[in-house]
Amino acid sequence: MNTYPSKLLENAVNELARLPGIGRKTALRLALHFLKKEVIEVEAFGSAILKLRKEIVYCEQCFNISDSVKCEICSSSKRVHELVCVVETVRDVLAIENTGQYNGIYHVLGGIISPIEGIGPEDLTIENLLTRADSGSIKEIILALPATIEGDTTNYYIYKRLKESGLRLTTIARGISIGDELEYTDEVTLGRSILNRTPYEAILSRK
Amino acid sequence: MNTYPSKLLENAVNELARLPGIGRKTALRLALHFLKKEVIEVEAFGSAILKLRKEIVYCEQCFNISDSVKCEICSSSKRVHELVCVVETVRDVLAIENTGQYNGIYHVLGGIISPIEGIGPEDLTIENLLTRADSGSIKEIILALPATIEGDTTNYYIYKRLKESGLRLTTIARGISIGDELEYTDEVTLGRSILNRTPYEAILSRK
Repeated sequence: MNTYPSKLLENAVNELARLPGIGRKTALRLALHFLKKEVIEVEAFGSAILKLRKEIVYCEQCFNISDSVKCEICSSSKRVHELVCVVETVRDVLAIENTGQYNGIYHVLGGIISPIEGIGPEDLTIENLLTRADSGSIKEIILALPATIEGDTTNYYIYKRLKESGLRLTTIARGISIGDELEYTDEVTLGRSILNRTPYEAILSRK
Repeated sequence: MNTYPSKLLENAVNELARLPGIGRKTALRLALHFLKKEVIEVEAFGSAILKLRKEIVYCEQCFNISDSVKCEICSSSKRVHELVCVVETVRDVLAIENTGQYNGIYHVLGGIISPIEGIGPEDLTIENLLTRADSGSIKEIILALPATIEGDTTNYYIYKRLKESGLRLTTIARGISIGDELEYTDEVTLGRSILNRTPYEAILSRK
């Protein structure tokens, strides 16, 4: 699909194909979709994205996306402000919020430490997290980073910087997904789920 | 994923989720992708799409997308202008062009007859095709529409309107895809491929 009948089409396909997860065939389908829409609809599409990029504000406390300098979660009096959950991205905040199981606040790192991609601690909001930890208003920090080498590295880095702080430092539980069969679970997960076994009474008392 | 932390983000996700094949999770991923890009890149993205929609020209002869009133294919002296391939969309033109096997010209219908979706012959460029057929410069029309009920209906409609014209009217061959196993082919395709069997010598002479 290299010879497009029009330069305009080619440019649009090139731009669309740069999006993550969008190949050239999908990009062409999307470009032709815009041709079928009214100009006003295409303008609304473009301006929604441009406005997002130009006017977005990040919460000055937790670095979540926000419409104001302090996000709704950080401003809420219904939240437990002593409990901070550290996540990689805004998508993780949304995922945790959707569970309805968490009522603390967050800290969005904006990435994880990855020497391969050239991302070090100074590229993330780790210093801001340490400042928050020092403020005296926090009691527990929950590390909810991905279960990858990079996630583990970042966890360890934060642990080292915070271990003298006296704060409670926890990570989210790793184990077998609810509904999953033991025999199809990878060995690492299965091994960890045995090591980190939970007293049955603790499960009972949650019901 | 219903409670976004920002109205700007929600608007952008809503717009992106309207695109065909893009769900809300992918839309969120794309929106956050734009946040990581420079403003100038996001502007280039928006303007490529808006320019496409506002400035696109369709070839006045074949209705292919074009940068001028007559597309490159219709203007080419290397093409056989007596041979017209009728297709549903611009994507079909690109697909056939990519085979490198066709040197005639095209006619893009802009859709196919579909009573369920309320698309009748008058919504397509069928009248323009009939005018082209009347002009005396065409000898054969190849119908290359999808092998669906709507495609067959459209084929039949065009056939009825053109059968008195004296033009040669053909359809692209339907059969078993190259590399496919007989046992996994659906019965309709297999049945048709037997009915429309090709003399072996015709295959030999093509090599």
